Amino acid sequence: MRSRLPYRAALVAVAFALGFYGSVPAPLTARAQKVEKIDPLPSWNEGAAKTAILDFVARTTKEGSPDFVPAPERIAVFDNDGTLWPENPLPFELAFTFDAAKARVAKKPELKDTPAYKALAEGDISALAADHHKLLMQLALDTHAGMTTDEFHKSVADWIATAKHPRYKRLYADCTFLPMQEALKLLRANGYKTFIVSGGTVEFMRVWAEKVYGIPPEQVVGTTFKTKYALVDEKPALTILPEIALIDDKAGKPVGIQQFIGRRPVMCFGNSDGDHEMLQWTTVGRKPSFGLIVHHTDGDREYAYDAKPKSSGKLVEALEAAPKRGWTVVDMKKDWKQVFTSEK
Amino acid sequence: MRSRLPYRAALVAVAFALGFYGSVPAPLTARAQKVEKIDPLPSWNEGAAKTAILDFVARTTKEGSPDFVPAPERIAVFDNDGTLWPENPLPFELAFTFDAAKARVAKKPELKDTPAYKALAEGDISALAADHHKLLMQLALDTHAGMTTDEFHKSVADWIATAKHPRYKRLYADCTFLPMQEALKLLRANGYKTFIVSGGTVEFMRVWAEKVYGIPPEQVVGTTFKTKYALVDEKPALTILPEIALIDDKAGKPVGIQQFIGRRPVMCFGNSDGDHEMLQWTTVGRKPSFGLIVHHTDGDREYAYDAKPKSSGKLVEALEAAPKRGWTVVDMKKDWKQVFTSEK
Repeated sequence: MRSRLPYRAALVAVAFALGFYGSVPAPLTARAQKVEKIDPLPSWNEGAAKTAILDFVARTTKEGSPDFVPAPERIAVFDNDGTLWPENPLPFELAFTFDAAKARVAKKPELKDTPAYKALAEGDISALAADHHKLLMQLALDTHAGMTTDEFHKSVADWIATAKHPRYKRLYADCTFLPMQEALKLLRANGYKTFIVSGGTVEFMRVWAEKVYGIPPEQVVGTTFKTKYALVDEKPALTILPEIALIDDKAGKPVGIQQFIGRRPVMCFGNSDGDHEMLQWTTVGRKPSFGLIVHHTDGDREYAYDAKPKSSGKLVEALEAAPKRGWTVVDMKKDWKQVFTSEK
Repeated sequence: MRSRLPYRAALVAVAFALGFYGSVPAPLTARAQKVEKIDPLPSWNEGAAKTAILDFVARTTKEGSPDFVPAPERIAVFDNDGTLWPENPLPFELAFTFDAAKARVAKKPELKDTPAYKALAEGDISALAADHHKLLMQLALDTHAGMTTDEFHKSVADWIATAKHPRYKRLYADCTFLPMQEALKLLRANGYKTFIVSGGTVEFMRVWAEKVYGIPPEQVVGTTFKTKYALVDEKPALTILPEIALIDDKAGKPVGIQQFIGRRPVMCFGNSDGDHEMLQWTTVGRKPSFGLIVHHTDGDREYAYDAKPKSSGKLVEALEAAPKRGWTVVDMKKDWKQVFTSEK
């Protein structure tokens, strides 16, 4: 009898090595026996997109395959807004910014009559956006900088635990895309290291990305503020300065990837022209490589858009380049059986 | 007979989980049987430093221990120059800079009579260092920027494969400290993620850190140049600009840790005042936490120094703070049985 447990443990170890499990093993014997029948992407309809993902992962992880990629080089990068969760009716970090700015006014009423907070109170988006988003930038700086990293993290943690999406009436953290969560798990189970590479700010995402996506802080790349270290009254602290170190969007995404990760990804998932350059950096002139664009075609279940001018969700150039580059384009309406992890 | 291989594999899996192995498993049965007798730090003499490391790792990784640290939070940071390899007679990246600058003159003879390259040819260090290291900075920029990341990586790869340390007459990559390599392996075998946090430039270290220390590019934090992305003639490239994004030294080390890693380390290993702030950031007001300083006391086998003014190896403030902070101070002469991985 002594050998039974190790034997089962070994089966599980092998199943893991072959990539059939996500991060949480279920009862051992039952799953090990039907290992080959588990669909790692159950919320994807059968079709070219699903096949492309499964095929690429198989080709790059099978020893002896001409496309084999050694485990340390299996880097996959994911945009966040519009790729892992929605970016409508507002990018979620913008919703946080507005909520945090309102909370700030509540504590400092003297702000109420200043132009930025007045425009916010009146919902005057065009005033906020005028003059190169001058007032909006002020709100962003007021709510993201001038405090320690610990203070900012607490502000985000409080918001993500309570704030709800206006349409779906559930926590923003419960509005992530199930098909992409499955893709993240499939990749990790096959030795890929998954990174977020987002225009959102890095400290905003790091607070919840591990719990929500299984992506640890050190694998989150994003827009970065400068910080300053000091030891004051025996307390070491980093203060966030109102100064941007990196804008991790468009041509800034390959820069962010090199700065934080230091090697070129093999797989890249995005949804807008903001991801065009990192799709190029991942795939152009490199084999094996994989690019994927989530095309928001489902106005019933989510939002349908691609060519809104000046929107962060604009998808024109990258979509046009997709056939030439061999990038997989996901038709959300057609390819996704279920959109959200939580549909309550 | 069929169960024998999985049974052995399971034993090895368990041994790994318990942290007895480094990254390369030896023949299975023999090692599994004497698992409890393997010393993970054989090149450390018995003493307070060795005991402190082993004790801390045991306390923080044993479930149920009051000091248990969940695996995702097991972040350990290591300075490089003077901590993982020597920094004398010159910091090794400075040796690379001089060699690369000389190679540059060979290709562009017109540089020969310019002040920086003339001072270099004459070995006139004081001329290079004058006026806030003006000429030295020029050589550093000439050899580190104004080229693509691929070109720079090739320049470093060629150097690290051939350049030899003037005293030890072997490759710089063969001059790493064996006791610290053992510490890296011990930590990794116990679920710690090991990072370099160095004043050296990040792209210089990323070329060889994986092979030399088992630390992948995405776990290397260092001084960073700005880069610029462009797709030219169907080739995507990042060009390194002659502009610093982050100086990862002194108060810049906690900044670099937060920027790249995004959470505070639990263990910190350094050797100079340049590491003082990251030792504070790791340990002050935080339990469990561990700080260690390598004190270079062995002029026979390595170099003995600590208070050279204006040297990168200056160790005064951090050494003075060590007793109060509870940092472990390694006396290299007394604590290390063998200094280098390769003594040929």
